[in-house]
Order: sequence, then structure tokens, then C-alpha cells
Amino acid sequence: MSPTGRVTRAEVAARAGVSTAVVSYTLNGGPKNVAPATRDRVLAAVRELGYRPNATARALRLGSTGQIGLVVATMSNPYFGQLTDETERAAAARGLALLVRTNSARDLTTAVEQLAERQVDGLLIAQSMDEASTAAVRATGVPTVLINEATAPDGVASVGVDRFGGARTAVEHLLGHGHRSVAFIGAAPGEDRRRGWSDALRAAGLGEGPAVEAEYSREGGYRGARRLLALDQPPTALLAGSDEQGLGALLALHEAGARVPEDVAVVAFDGSIASAYAWPPLTTVTQPTQEMVGRALDLLLQPGEPQQSILAPALVRRRSCGC
Amino acid sequence: MSPTGRVTRAEVAARAGVSTAVVSYTLNGGPKNVAPATRDRVLAAVRELGYRPNATARALRLGSTGQIGLVVATMSNPYFGQLTDETERAAAARGLALLVRTNSARDLTTAVEQLAERQVDGLLIAQSMDEASTAAVRATGVPTVLINEATAPDGVASVGVDRFGGARTAVEHLLGHGHRSVAFIGAAPGEDRRRGWSDALRAAGLGEGPAVEAEYSREGGYRGARRLLALDQPPTALLAGSDEQGLGALLALHEAGARVPEDVAVVAFDGSIASAYAWPPLTTVTQPTQEMVGRALDLLLQPGEPQQSILAPALVRRRSCGC
Repeated sequence: MSPTGRVTRAEVAARAGVSTAVVSYTLNGGPKNVAPATRDRVLAAVRELGYRPNATARALRLGSTGQIGLVVATMSNPYFGQLTDETERAAAARGLALLVRTNSARDLTTAVEQLAERQVDGLLIAQSMDEASTAAVRATGVPTVLINEATAPDGVASVGVDRFGGARTAVEHLLGHGHRSVAFIGAAPGEDRRRGWSDALRAAGLGEGPAVEAEYSREGGYRGARRLLALDQPPTALLAGSDEQGLGALLALHEAGARVPEDVAVVAFDGSIASAYAWPPLTTVTQPTQEMVGRALDLLLQPGEPQQSILAPALVRRRSCGC
Repeated sequence: MSPTGRVTRAEVAARAGVSTAVVSYTLNGGPKNVAPATRDRVLAAVRELGYRPNATARALRLGSTGQIGLVVATMSNPYFGQLTDETERAAAARGLALLVRTNSARDLTTAVEQLAERQVDGLLIAQSMDEASTAAVRATGVPTVLINEATAPDGVASVGVDRFGGARTAVEHLLGHGHRSVAFIGAAPGEDRRRGWSDALRAAGLGEGPAVEAEYSREGGYRGARRLLALDQPPTALLAGSDEQGLGALLALHEAGARVPEDVAVVAFDGSIASAYAWPPLTTVTQPTQEMVGRALDLLLQPGEPQQSILAPALVRRRSCGC
């Protein structure tokens, strides 16, 4: 074996009694033909020695790795865990393996550079991009699609969901249940879900209900709901910006003895498996992750002018809204 | 730019007015010295052109990538999502980047081979290994540690948790609450958690309560609990083999109108964030993931004789057990 502990092409050649070039022709299907008997001898030697052609060496030569990369901020949010599994399956269906890079430190630039350095054929990024990471993506020269984001920097393709419309539909649904005080737990003013929430209230001739800025986590939703419950006039319904926040809000409501949906109705946003197994099961604006992933891979594999693709989410009704 | 869209070392050299060898000496810190003024000129050219030294080329030369790999079966289970985030943070603290490969198709052999081909310095595998994948690990020659598994194939280092002891403690705790009929939802006879459950019952002079084999998912726990509730004499307590199963069991109990913990007490196993935000919050046998990950990285980076390391889990008491 070589000093790195790997079986080398030379050892395969020696075992098969051929030149190293013939080993390469056999494994690469050319450029020269190899007689069937010789080919069988080479393949037998490959098997016997456990030789693995070096993919990075192949990538340097061929510029194609059969592998794509995915950057996700955190896997502790099960929505992104599911998105990752969906991406792996969709990539496998196209004959591609998936390399994932989590990025809880939010250093997207380094994550992009390191994945690109691994010679992936393309990159999916499931995290909002700033100027530095956009520059990093351009510098890599690797085709990149932003996924799970509705807006992308100039020149970057993206596939996202109409969060504004999804939130608007969710609030309209709560108004249809008779609620007049619908609160919001999520991002700061200006964010799409928050705009959808306030737009639906305004269109119904209602003032904005209370809104709480919170992290996209169970803890964030828990704290947000506790703040809403402490108001002089707590809301009778709330929209959470993510399932994780909705699940945290449920715990705060249970602890306070508030019945869901009788005292406070809840709608969340994402459509993770967890939402279906909450108590009560969460009505949630569900993102079409399978379609999103498929579209993103299509954009990645047939790159043309960068497109920004927006899909429609669907309100999945369960018990927490009063249905 | 080169045909692959990358800035080349030759372009950096031209911009800096030096030879390509001097670019290499500057970026690699040797083998020859570079005058400070020349070095500054090279680094300015690197910045201006956005040149990225090719990590796979470096890896081929140096045999060290600054990167480790992690194989996880599925990210849809939030416990593994959290384990991934813990691993990323612990690796970063050691100056290493983490590449993750999910493997929902359970083709561990291919996952191992593909990560090893990417030239990682070491591999963590959070999935039980069969003969084929063990052979694949040996063939790669890459240091490997099995993580989150108490038993490993010969010659493979591992860090796991005492699942037998954890399950035993959980059942003893339920017996301490006065329960005499404690059911189990999880793996088949012989598995560690199931052995711990039956051992605790036997030690208390009780017969085995009912046991249901179920997938490690919310759906599995949900179905398992429904089967237990359909028995002529449903149990008054149950141990679930994972938090996901425990969360699924909670939904089935709520739907059936069974109060938790008054009618049926529940203890789960894992210690995911989700268990703390369930309703009622789940008492759970909590795995020391941070310690597990730290130990695994130590074994990976200072490989000696393969060690099998077993850590003790802790019972975290919340409302679902009756505490």
C-alpha cells in the first residue's frame, strides 16, 4: 500500500499484470479499448485489493464529481432536517450524492468555500445570503441555487415559497373562525410573513394585533407566547412564523392553563412532521418541500439565466385553529 | 480564468509578477522562504482575483484536509439533527470543518466510500454497522469512530451510551411511582433498551408488561401506543425507546382521552429539545451528546488501539412520568 494506507493503481496494475494506463482505460472506459479478458483481470484485481479510484483525482481531471453540496444553518430545527432528507432522496434519484455542511456559526462564506473546495458539481444554500457569501458563491464558479428563500441576490437562482401569501391565508382563516385579535410571533416588521399577517388584518378593517419578535426556535415561541399572555388583553389567536415557534407557544399556553383552540387558536408555518404530532395537532402553512427541492435541482443541473422561482404553500388544517 | 471558471495559480503569479512556485511557497509557508514584500504582493493578488487554493489538490499532496466526515441515517429525527450540530461545534473548536452525509437509503457502504473519497481526515458514523460497511471502513484506511452506538465491530472505535442501564433506571423510576404494569415501545427482544426494561421488571418480581415493536419515529410510537391502548388491560405506564416514539405515543394517548401521567405515565429515551417542549413535557433518559461527541473526536484525532467507550445517560424528570 501507499504511505496513506490506500491501495494504489500501480498495485492493481502489478496484480493484473498490465500497465497502469490499462488500469485507467479499464476504469474510465477509455480513451483506448481494453480486451475483454484483460478488463476482467483488472476488475478482479480491483476487487481483490479493495482498490478505490480516487474521486478527488478524478474530479480534478474530469471536472465532474457526481456530488452536490447543501448548506443548512442548523439541523436542530427539524424542518431543515426534513428538507435535508428530501434533498438527499431527490439528488439520489438523479444519480447524485449529497454532501451537507451545517453552519450554526452563520459563517456562510466559509461554508460555501469549503464545500466548493471539495469539488462539488453544484451548491444548494438554505440560508439567506449576505454580500460576503454572495461574493464567495461568485468566486467559486460553482452553480448555486438558493433554496427555501423567496428573494435572492442578483445573479443567484432561487426557489422559495410565497411566505407573504401563506401568512395572509393563515390569518384570513383565523378571521373566518371569528377571531378579531390575532397576534404574531416571528420576525421584525418588513419580513414577508409579518407583512402577510398585517395585510390580512388591514384588509379586514382591523388594527394590527400584538406582535412579538422571537427567534425561530421552540424557546423563541415559548417566550413570545408568554409575553402575549401577560398582556392586559391577550389575543384569542396567534400566527407563529415557524412550526418550532408554534410548538413552543403551545407549551406556554398549556402551562398557563389556556385551552387550544378554545381560548387561543394557533396556526404555525412550515409543515414539519412535528406539527402533526403536537397536542393539539398544529394547523400550519405547509411548504411544498418536495417540489421546492426538485425545482432547485433542475435549476442547478440545467443552469441558464438565474431564475427566481416562487411556489405556493398550502394551509394544512388540524385542531389548533379551531377546525 | 481556467475552463472550470476558477482563477488559477498562474493568473495569481502573473498579477503579482512572480513565478507560480513563489505563489505556492507563499500560500504553503514553504518549502522556500519568500521575501516579505513579495509575499504581500502575492497575497494582494490572491485577494484581488479571489483565488482559492484547491483543497483537493492540497489534500492529495499533504494527506490532510482539515475536514472530518459524519454519516447519519436521517436528519428527520431531531435527535440526530442536534447530534450533528453538536459535532459541528465540537469540530470547529478543534479547527476542523464537518462534512455530513445523510443516508436514508441505509447504504452505509456507499456513504462511507463517498465521504472517504472526498479526502476527509476522519469519519464519524452514527449508525449501526454491518459487515459490508465495516469492510468499507477498513478499505478506506481513514480513521473511523462509531458514535451513538454501544457496540462496534472488532477493530472499530466507538462511543456510545449505556442503553441497558438507562432503560433499567427509567423503569425503576416508574415502579417507584407505584406502577406495576409498565409497557415498552421500541426494538425487538435482545436490544439493550428492551433488555433493561425487562431486567428491571424481573428484578421487581413482576412479569414482563406488554411490548410493541415499532419504528423509531413519531408514527411508530403513535401506532405502538394505539396497540397498547387496545389491550384488554392497557398498561398504566410505558417506556418508549426514543423521544420520537414517546412524542407519537403522547398523541395517541391524547386522542384516546387518556390523561398523562394520571392514566398512563410515559418515559422516553434520547433527551432531544423536542422532549422538553412536548405536552406534558417528557421525562426522558438523556444521552450526554456533548460528551459523546467530544470523546469521539478525541478518539478520531489521536487514534491508537480502537477503544469502545460507554457513557452513562441521565434520567431527566419532567411531568410525563408523574413527578
